[in-house]
Amino acid sequence: MNTPEALKNIRVVLCATAHPGNIGSAARAMRTMGITDLALVNPQRYPDPQTQWFAAGAVDVLESARVCATLEDALEGVSFAVACSARRRDIAVPLTDVRSAAQEAVAQAQQQRVAFVFGNETSGLSNDEVSRCHLLASIPVDPAFSSLNVAAAVQVFCYELRMACGAALPEERPPLLAAINDVEAFYRHLETTLVEIGFLDPRQPRKLMQRLRRLFGRTRLQVEEVNILRGILSGLTHPQPRRSSKDEK
Amino acid sequence: MNTPEALKNIRVVLCATAHPGNIGSAARAMRTMGITDLALVNPQRYPDPQTQWFAAGAVDVLESARVCATLEDALEGVSFAVACSARRRDIAVPLTDVRSAAQEAVAQAQQQRVAFVFGNETSGLSNDEVSRCHLLASIPVDPAFSSLNVAAAVQVFCYELRMACGAALPEERPPLLAAINDVEAFYRHLETTLVEIGFLDPRQPRKLMQRLRRLFGRTRLQVEEVNILRGILSGLTHPQPRRSSKDEK
Repeated sequence: MNTPEALKNIRVVLCATAHPGNIGSAARAMRTMGITDLALVNPQRYPDPQTQWFAAGAVDVLESARVCATLEDALEGVSFAVACSARRRDIAVPLTDVRSAAQEAVAQAQQQRVAFVFGNETSGLSNDEVSRCHLLASIPVDPAFSSLNVAAAVQVFCYELRMACGAALPEERPPLLAAINDVEAFYRHLETTLVEIGFLDPRQPRKLMQRLRRLFGRTRLQVEEVNILRGILSGLTHPQPRRSSKDEK
Repeated sequence: MNTPEALKNIRVVLCATAHPGNIGSAARAMRTMGITDLALVNPQRYPDPQTQWFAAGAVDVLESARVCATLEDALEGVSFAVACSARRRDIAVPLTDVRSAAQEAVAQAQQQRVAFVFGNETSGLSNDEVSRCHLLASIPVDPAFSSLNVAAAVQVFCYELRMACGAALPEERPPLLAAINDVEAFYRHLETTLVEIGFLDPRQPRKLMQRLRRLFGRTRLQVEEVNILRGILSGLTHPQPRRSSKDEK
């Protein structure tokens, strides 16, 4: 899948980021998911070589990143904004999880620009910042250890945005299954062989064949596999004399 | 949600990790999602202070982490293993995406131990390592920039594992809606007021009231909000004389 159109309308806004490495990691996280519009509100150390190191090649995101003085500036041109925060507030912004927020954002981003807003590593987003957004979205975390790194959070949000665009792995062509009649012929061959070698007593079959059918049925035998299995069965009952070393030459 | 039982049966295996910071970030990523069983196969620099820095407090994960000489050792006691890799192979391990893999793994982890295996930052997993696993799972990435950091990949997998356990945000009690009759009384009040101030001509209403109903209907008015709105309407038509400064004392 190339970059879905909706992802071109998604902006990531990082507010008051303290560590320049996190800005680089966030840029890399965005870029892997096909999101490239980054705005930085009052980054504490920027530019900084660490940002480049952690971006690991996602330099196009950094080169086009805008540094803004206020969140208002960073939301210029944006119609729908999602505050990304683990902390709940007693303010009137509906709370949702990252998956639902991504789905709603991608629907909006078909037509309009959408922003995801992330706060400072320690203090997060202020209530004033959250109240400028339409949704407050959280990643479910272990309540005993909720310290999610900001770039890791950006990674999860951008991943969900790409998934919400219907990102799927390119389809694999399913393997060719053996014809049912060929598989039945294998079962008959198997049964005959098991009787021949004395493993199956036709007078006391004890559901052995049903069990073997269940085993092989689950694997959905392929053409070549049926040939291999029948070759093994033939080998069991009609062993070929080992070729002499003269023949091998 | 506290730690679901299934997550206690999930092991993360990092093979030949080059950067100690990535081990720390991966430990932190695991811990935020409630996963704590970590095995390290031949880490290139370990222990190392960087690991602790990047773990940001997820020290319990590091303290119980096992260092193994081979993948075989790291998979001790594991019944179901998922190879996590962006690279496709021409080997007979079914390919799936991270979400489906997480769902299958959580189902298995109700009863048995499950491992997610991640490769080296540069070379990934070898075909031999992948072929010891039951599934090959990938995170969908932008094909033009597929360089996902290993700890970021661990974050996405662990997030999907937690989601697959039915992780949901604790339910919010929905706000109390105003009674329908009170909302109707507000609409009547609004209409009367709009006629009174000359904004609505009863002879040419032009669907104004339907439009306003649609607007307020979408917001699902709450009790207090209806009171506020009716207060505003009363204020518009029966303005209160501003209290004198004497009254305010």
